Amino acid sequence: MTTTRSTPEVLSRARALSYPMLRRAVDRLSPELRPAVEYHLGWNDEHGNPVGGDGGKGVRPALALLSAESVAAPAELGVLGGVAVELVHNFSLIHDDVIDNDATRRHRPTVWALFGVGRAVIVGDALLALAQQIVLDPVGIADLAAPTLFDGAAAARCVADATAAMIAGQALDMAFEQVPSVDVAGCLAMEAGKTGALLGCAASIGAVLAGASAHTIAELERFGVELGLAFQAIDDLLGIWGDTGQTGKPAYSDIRQHKKTLPISAALASGAEPVEELAALLSRDDLDEADLAHAAALVESCGGRAVAAEEADRRLASALGALDAAELTESGRAELIEVANFVVEREF
Amino acid sequence: MTTTRSTPEVLSRARALSYPMLRRAVDRLSPELRPAVEYHLGWNDEHGNPVGGDGGKGVRPALALLSAESVAAPAELGVLGGVAVELVHNFSLIHDDVIDNDATRRHRPTVWALFGVGRAVIVGDALLALAQQIVLDPVGIADLAAPTLFDGAAAARCVADATAAMIAGQALDMAFEQVPSVDVAGCLAMEAGKTGALLGCAASIGAVLAGASAHTIAELERFGVELGLAFQAIDDLLGIWGDTGQTGKPAYSDIRQHKKTLPISAALASGAEPVEELAALLSRDDLDEADLAHAAALVESCGGRAVAAEEADRRLASALGALDAAELTESGRAELIEVANFVVEREF
Repeated sequence: MTTTRSTPEVLSRARALSYPMLRRAVDRLSPELRPAVEYHLGWNDEHGNPVGGDGGKGVRPALALLSAESVAAPAELGVLGGVAVELVHNFSLIHDDVIDNDATRRHRPTVWALFGVGRAVIVGDALLALAQQIVLDPVGIADLAAPTLFDGAAAARCVADATAAMIAGQALDMAFEQVPSVDVAGCLAMEAGKTGALLGCAASIGAVLAGASAHTIAELERFGVELGLAFQAIDDLLGIWGDTGQTGKPAYSDIRQHKKTLPISAALASGAEPVEELAALLSRDDLDEADLAHAAALVESCGGRAVAAEEADRRLASALGALDAAELTESGRAELIEVANFVVEREF
Repeated sequence: MTTTRSTPEVLSRARALSYPMLRRAVDRLSPELRPAVEYHLGWNDEHGNPVGGDGGKGVRPALALLSAESVAAPAELGVLGGVAVELVHNFSLIHDDVIDNDATRRHRPTVWALFGVGRAVIVGDALLALAQQIVLDPVGIADLAAPTLFDGAAAARCVADATAAMIAGQALDMAFEQVPSVDVAGCLAMEAGKTGALLGCAASIGAVLAGASAHTIAELERFGVELGLAFQAIDDLLGIWGDTGQTGKPAYSDIRQHKKTLPISAALASGAEPVEELAALLSRDDLDEADLAHAAALVESCGGRAVAAEEADRRLASALGALDAAELTESGRAELIEVANFVVEREF
């Protein structure tokens, strides 16, 4: 008989197992680098005083943990992989805030806004190098029993490839800012890089570290990539029609910011009757609340909302199909399905 | 009988072997990232037109190549390692120019000055991820014969550890800018990170990839680190007393820029009689040419010049001692000695 944990249990267990290992990893950084990292992760305030934040819902660590357990490998391998993924994720947040000139993240000043651009650059670099170091040399980080099969090189490749794909997605996103509109394929390619790649790594790295079969690793990775795209489609919907209390952003946020997300790209490419009016509206910098509501209604009447909603459904189905195709323990598969449903229902 | 090549031959051979592999590596980058990299490497001008630059004297590629050949391993392994090191080196140059707000490098605008800070950040990130990718997955980059022993995981660790040490050195350097003076030990620790670590990686990575003995790898790495420190001590001397025609920098450059290099740190820590006058001079922002010349003379009379010159000699001797302790081919050792002498005689 196998026992399936509830999603809150899965997430809180992943957070509890990851936190001490992430601490040990960050302790490897020199004293000049550590304060900005401890601030960014929500552990400390800007004066270095502990504030007890635990840094996020723990979806990535949970996927990594389950990717090990679902191939009957030790949890510790999954936790190690998850910590590497978290380090890469936070490297990208710190650098993206510099690139996007965003001064606020989760209601706090971003690293560059508080410590300066130079420090944000070097601190992000340090997290990326650290992610590689801990999978290649986990001594002092993870407590791996001697006989544990451990493929650090494959995990380092998983991390490096996901990082490179994420960077390429970010570069594509930056290029999109310079053009008036983006086609749906370009939009999806950008989102596959920016959101899909690292989630694909998170959902497979435990199995990679454990030396699972190439087939199972590939299906777990596909599960993560597809789940990332489902999440992103929903995030794009929330960016226009989300409840401001839930998203913490102003209404019609992505229209305000001239983002070229999936619903907007699909609407502009639809050839529907109001496309011209929509394009004219989106090119303006002086939209008031009524204009924003009207633009959102036009995106919807051009089919953009339906395209994104269908994309989310299709990607979730595809993610769950990948789990069917992989050879996994019964409880591991069940918990991965639960986390997947949680991800598409809620924000990370 | 073994044949020892001259240093110009060694360097030009390393450049010739590295260039096509570095091209193939850069070709892995997405089209949004490549132009800034090709510009930075001196291959193209700012419009993307080829200008035929070959990016530096080739000291790091030569060390990497010789680190393979000196343990009787295929040259291709050393070239691969050298390309990874060059990618890390150029990642650090692009980010350091952002951090230091330097708008010019080698008489051309820096990447951030030409393409913007955001692009410089993401392009540097891409080079760091690429360095890891090519040692972990050299297919399509290096033409390694099937039976070649190839330890990509150890090489990736060598690269990640050197990168982390280099970043820590850069962070220390940034911290030093906030304090009035730095002790000699702190200065040397910073230089060991900023300059020594990556040269240690360059001088050993071929042997690492080839799976040489731990002893020989450790001695080759020590050779590179010590050589880096010897080079840096000379660079610090040139930063004050260098011929402006040779260095391309204004006279007394490091005093002008309030850098806390080894001669200055040693002079201030000497306890010699003119230290107070020197400290007062260095704290001023309005030094004219006569003041600069006087400050340089005070650094010298406080023994700062002699300390740096002795440091360079001692580090070079220590580097050559490491080569004696390693098990190397006769020609490999001879060529490494030649390159070492070239490095301390000339700028990179």
